[in-house]
Amino acid sequence: MLILLSNDDGINAPGIRAMHKGLKTIGDVVVVAPEMERSAVGHAITIAHPLRVREVLDHGKKFGFAVDGTPADCVKIGIKALMEKKPDILVSGVNHGANVATNIIYSGTVSAATEGTILGVPSVALSLATFDRNPDFSVAVKYGLEIVQKVAAKGLPRGTLLNVNIPAVEEKKIRGIKICRQSHCIFDVAFDKRSDLRGMDYYWQGGDMNTHDADSSVDIMQLGQGYVTITPIHYDLTNYPFLEELTTWDF
Amino acid sequence: MLILLSNDDGINAPGIRAMHKGLKTIGDVVVVAPEMERSAVGHAITIAHPLRVREVLDHGKKFGFAVDGTPADCVKIGIKALMEKKPDILVSGVNHGANVATNIIYSGTVSAATEGTILGVPSVALSLATFDRNPDFSVAVKYGLEIVQKVAAKGLPRGTLLNVNIPAVEEKKIRGIKICRQSHCIFDVAFDKRSDLRGMDYYWQGGDMNTHDADSSVDIMQLGQGYVTITPIHYDLTNYPFLEELTTWDF
Repeated sequence: MLILLSNDDGINAPGIRAMHKGLKTIGDVVVVAPEMERSAVGHAITIAHPLRVREVLDHGKKFGFAVDGTPADCVKIGIKALMEKKPDILVSGVNHGANVATNIIYSGTVSAATEGTILGVPSVALSLATFDRNPDFSVAVKYGLEIVQKVAAKGLPRGTLLNVNIPAVEEKKIRGIKICRQSHCIFDVAFDKRSDLRGMDYYWQGGDMNTHDADSSVDIMQLGQGYVTITPIHYDLTNYPFLEELTTWDF
Repeated sequence: MLILLSNDDGINAPGIRAMHKGLKTIGDVVVVAPEMERSAVGHAITIAHPLRVREVLDHGKKFGFAVDGTPADCVKIGIKALMEKKPDILVSGVNHGANVATNIIYSGTVSAATEGTILGVPSVALSLATFDRNPDFSVAVKYGLEIVQKVAAKGLPRGTLLNVNIPAVEEKKIRGIKICRQSHCIFDVAFDKRSDLRGMDYYWQGGDMNTHDADSSVDIMQLGQGYVTITPIHYDLTNYPFLEELTTWDF
């Protein structure tokens, strides 16, 4: 099995290094990941600048390719220019931090898996729900491998990927795996206005994730309850029910 | 009616200037747009750097705010920090170039409207289907105003926005308005490998949009047939039909 591994935390992030180690036990792994952290880039691609690619070694052996672009760039250039064969599966992560609810539209981790899906490769995004500085990725890797092997065996419908989130707890505290829809919870954004040393204003973007959804079955709630969550997502953004209604508007 | 106007081509783009002129006839307009062109940034937001905001004048009068961030940043900071009141409606565009099919996930124009929707403001993305250097935006503005006024009167369901594309033809050649789903057509990406003056490799990302969909009712096909297309989209990416099936996988 040929596996393309990417992420948005950058090629040196502990999460991708841990996942690489795990994936090597089940297949051949090619890493194509951003040179630097590219979190919250959404589905950005680089069209106004050229991309540079750098071969990266690990203990003297080929580890992968670092690209000075976005996660979506990495997957595109990996599949279309760097890999000799199309991969059988794509894995994005393990990301440092959860990717659930409305926040997934900002996620570079999910974006890499979306790009794999667009290019016809079954894809899985993996995220560990913690902001701890130095988290243990081993439980996430273990669940990730189980899910990746299931996807490799069963395949995914055209245009659909799996968004997986793993609680940052000891393995015995994981309560199981839940299949969930995406919560509609949003990040409650706020801006902090400050002055620089020349007296010029600037703004920092911040805020808090709203982590309560009235529907307890959704990703953000189940993750909070200690479950590994799997949300099947796609890139057809059409709101089909409203499409019908809109045809009755008198245009 | 208080209108927030943004785009991804930048605050000086002819498309936003033309739309501003049109929108002024139906309401009060606040422009918050990127300082520079930020096409293909998808739903990127700026979290690792501060944002700068610059007041922009037009013939000595307040025109709006230029932000050194992405379209999603502009909408967030516009609604949360720069505007005194929450806008009644958000308009993104008129973009220079179509935003249809799978390509809408890369679109900064659509992203601005998505961000407005997340923040509870009825939002419309407008794009003119041409790559001509100096296109005429007047027909797009006219249709845009009609659609914006309809949305202002009827509202939109929570979480749903309208993605509108206008053919770049004379008004009398427009065949009407069609409500369409998003096509699954993808951009057929290719990379061109070149060497710089120091002999170092770099890659340009390019390719062609696949403009044929077997289903002639979709956005890309109807636009090509000379119709203004309206696609209602949302940011719930859950693939609901497959969600059911996935629960039968033996996790």
